[in-house]
Amino acid sequence: MDNLKQKNGLEILKADGEKIRQDLTGQFGDLCLMQCPIVEEIIDTQMLVYSKEVDFAKRCGLISEQVATDLVNELSVEIEDLYQAITQNQASQLDKKD
Amino acid sequence: MDNLKQKNGLEILKADGEKIRQDLTGQFGDLCLMQCPIVEEIIDTQMLVYSKEVDFAKRCGLISEQVATDLVNELSVEIEDLYQAITQNQASQLDKKD
Repeated sequence: MDNLKQKNGLEILKADGEKIRQDLTGQFGDLCLMQCPIVEEIIDTQMLVYSKEVDFAKRCGLISEQVATDLVNELSVEIEDLYQAITQNQASQLDKKD
Repeated sequence: MDNLKQKNGLEILKADGEKIRQDLTGQFGDLCLMQCPIVEEIIDTQMLVYSKEVDFAKRCGLISEQVATDLVNELSVEIEDLYQAITQNQASQLDKKD
């Protein structure tokens, strides 16, 4: 039961991370300009909340310190890469319109 | 062990709530004007993070839905009351200085 809860906690965290990725590649990427400061602020807030969730899971003993660090670092890098890719893609589309 | 982890999760959440209260009555109350939009934004962010932590604990099965609702609602009411009390106290101190 205890292992089940730990697995459950890790799976929920992974799903939460996936949701942030999907927001970025989905509606944000389609409907919002990445340069828009509101987009940046929403992503920053989502990452803050995510890192606090992960930290709480670590403090509860649901995940190890190493897993916590990896989860946050990996998502940060991925989000940054996605953000850059979408920004460049949007810029090239805007260039075409000119 | 499982009950221990649940208790631990609830205790950590209560401690996190207490920390928000202490920030408000401590350094914010002493050093910052409550009307300052930055103070309001920091408190809003802390409450957002707290409610997401509580939500995560609920989704992991560490606390019940009712406990989750109570934790967030009670802290929101307390923080609002504290905020109003400090704002009024600061206003009356500023009046005295005039």
